[in-house]
Amino acid sequence: MTTVEEAEKLVLAQIRDYGTQSFPFEQALGCALAEDLKADRDLPPFNRVTMDGIAVKYEAIESGINIFRIKATQAAGDEPVQIDSAEECIEIMTGAVLPASVDTVIRYEDVEIIAGSASVHTRDIKKGQNLHLQGLDKKQNDVISSAGQVVSPAIVSVAASVGKTHLLVKKMPRVAIVSSGDELVDVHETPLPYQIRKSNSYMVKAVLKQHGTDADILHIPDEPAVTKEKIQYCLQNYDVLLLSGGVSMGKFDYIPRALEELKVEKLFHKVAQRPGKPFWFGRHNNGALVFAFPGNPVATFMCLHRYFLTWLNTALGLPAKAATYAVLGKDFTFQPALQYYLQVKLQSNGLGQLIATPVEGNGSGDFANLADTEAFLELPPEKNNFKAGEVFKVWRFNHDL
Amino acid sequence: MTTVEEAEKLVLAQIRDYGTQSFPFEQALGCALAEDLKADRDLPPFNRVTMDGIAVKYEAIESGINIFRIKATQAAGDEPVQIDSAEECIEIMTGAVLPASVDTVIRYEDVEIIAGSASVHTRDIKKGQNLHLQGLDKKQNDVISSAGQVVSPAIVSVAASVGKTHLLVKKMPRVAIVSSGDELVDVHETPLPYQIRKSNSYMVKAVLKQHGTDADILHIPDEPAVTKEKIQYCLQNYDVLLLSGGVSMGKFDYIPRALEELKVEKLFHKVAQRPGKPFWFGRHNNGALVFAFPGNPVATFMCLHRYFLTWLNTALGLPAKAATYAVLGKDFTFQPALQYYLQVKLQSNGLGQLIATPVEGNGSGDFANLADTEAFLELPPEKNNFKAGEVFKVWRFNHDL
Repeated sequence: MTTVEEAEKLVLAQIRDYGTQSFPFEQALGCALAEDLKADRDLPPFNRVTMDGIAVKYEAIESGINIFRIKATQAAGDEPVQIDSAEECIEIMTGAVLPASVDTVIRYEDVEIIAGSASVHTRDIKKGQNLHLQGLDKKQNDVISSAGQVVSPAIVSVAASVGKTHLLVKKMPRVAIVSSGDELVDVHETPLPYQIRKSNSYMVKAVLKQHGTDADILHIPDEPAVTKEKIQYCLQNYDVLLLSGGVSMGKFDYIPRALEELKVEKLFHKVAQRPGKPFWFGRHNNGALVFAFPGNPVATFMCLHRYFLTWLNTALGLPAKAATYAVLGKDFTFQPALQYYLQVKLQSNGLGQLIATPVEGNGSGDFANLADTEAFLELPPEKNNFKAGEVFKVWRFNHDL
Repeated sequence: MTTVEEAEKLVLAQIRDYGTQSFPFEQALGCALAEDLKADRDLPPFNRVTMDGIAVKYEAIESGINIFRIKATQAAGDEPVQIDSAEECIEIMTGAVLPASVDTVIRYEDVEIIAGSASVHTRDIKKGQNLHLQGLDKKQNDVISSAGQVVSPAIVSVAASVGKTHLLVKKMPRVAIVSSGDELVDVHETPLPYQIRKSNSYMVKAVLKQHGTDADILHIPDEPAVTKEKIQYCLQNYDVLLLSGGVSMGKFDYIPRALEELKVEKLFHKVAQRPGKPFWFGRHNNGALVFAFPGNPVATFMCLHRYFLTWLNTALGLPAKAATYAVLGKDFTFQPALQYYLQVKLQSNGLGQLIATPVEGNGSGDFANLADTEAFLELPPEKNNFKAGEVFKVWRFNHDL
């Protein structure tokens, strides 16, 4: 059976570049940045005053002057005003440009202003104080944010400040989420006693939405001709098919046959993991990829995070996410020689450690349990007994901590 | 000066309930759930087959029968078919209802089917195996997901499965993001040498978007009458005003005067923290709240996460977020008696600890730095020297780990 590591490798070998597109900068939030953002001017673009007060020439202070005639008042956004002699000062506001004729700012708290003059109360004045000097953060044309990262609020702000009204971002693959089986009815319908409502597709779509990807939902009934036709349609119109259910050995699983007839090459089927053992992955000639997840909700959810999102991250040119580790909070036993993805709650302790507490459901069919957990703890297949205090890799899907 | 703890308390004392609204369930992702989701039927709703194979009566196995005549084939979504004698079986598929006349499922891998009969190859059969029993996960009317949590993909899936096409969620407060100052020009404009582009408002809006809240952006020029008029408009039309800049002692800061004239009660001004010391917080008679953040981007960003999002979380009826702790990665010194929010990168180590490495910028004006960090480490004011290995609370704003 394919190991988890092999499966991941095979999935990550199928990287396509879906190109780039230009978005208004605000709408690019969450997308993968595909261009470097450079400073259009020095940052700050001028010697910027950081306190409200008066601007003087430091030489004057050194020579013992401590009363200054206010030549003018200069707000942020005003053109700089110059002094004509060392006895003069400029009353100046935070964010203003420091005029070339002065070099030091004394804050309001340290001066008294009477009848157009400012007298300085403190001796603790350093040359050049209360300024954010031109180019201190970045020089013109320096890269501030480089391509190959997710556009965060801070990057939105960088884009705004350098005047990039549009950002080049990676295009997302077109994704179809495909459910199958006559036992499934729609959410607004009342299922017969032997039917259930579709729910996996909505969960998958919601996870994709959290990761900035939209997707279409399709359903295939248990009918061979329709199955083939719909799969063919998807292969022609989407970059990725996410199937949930329909790839087991069951007599009415027409999907494996349709995939074979439509020349989708199987890259692996069955992975040494639980949940998600029957996971199937393949590729069509035209490049379309098929992730066929098992029908159990927890298995679909796990495979989606473990494989599809890892693949998407790579396809978008983003750096591999650094692994996160957590401490198992209580002993746990798992017999089969499979990599086990244990549903856990995470808590931070006083040592700065993440503690993972198992929340066991009733097997992979129990999606009610998923809502109460935050991550999967990845327990290696070579062991059966996992002791409290041991550290394992963790795959987070809720991000409160 | 107000301490961080006092400021937080004063902010959290201003909780309003903005009511609820009904959303199509898919659009409720990320909202605060305002109703319990109950099982409309038992979960699973019937004894559900979990493997493709044959369904038999266990008594028959016990009595030594190991060849069964296939009475019928039953797929998921089919009405159950009954056997008439213990020598019969039903060929049955994953997801199907277990017929009442059988009680055990033997998977395909353990049988051979020839000429309408299935012969069983294994002796390792347990009564009731390969079934997910009715009501094992939840009983009808059990609460599956309770009010007072964020709608996650798992909850979207719960909603779908119990037929909730619409979800009651908490209404978000109406938020206005207000910038001020004539030194600011718009993103598409080319600033004069003494001007800069607006960027804080877009950053704030992006953070709010990440938390499911939309907001309007307004700008106020340095003109007293217009300032008052615009602030009044906001107080009448929004629940929350997020100001950035304009509340310092500067001569052209017309906002403090306008707030006073419009009867916005100051609840605190200045907090013993860096960045964000000049943070001002107040309340209008009509309930509108004013968070006036300092104009420095890092200060605005910190206060937004530390105070506004904490307030929003509480206002939406969500439980307080559990604190996360991280280990300081290298020695750090900070002299002023202020709570310092140190910008850090986070990494997970082999002990399951989060390690926080300081990434120091050039003061709170340096937003370029923000894009490279993931959290603020909260360093207490009573100390000046912080040693590598010490553990502190961390406020995360990027959620890769």
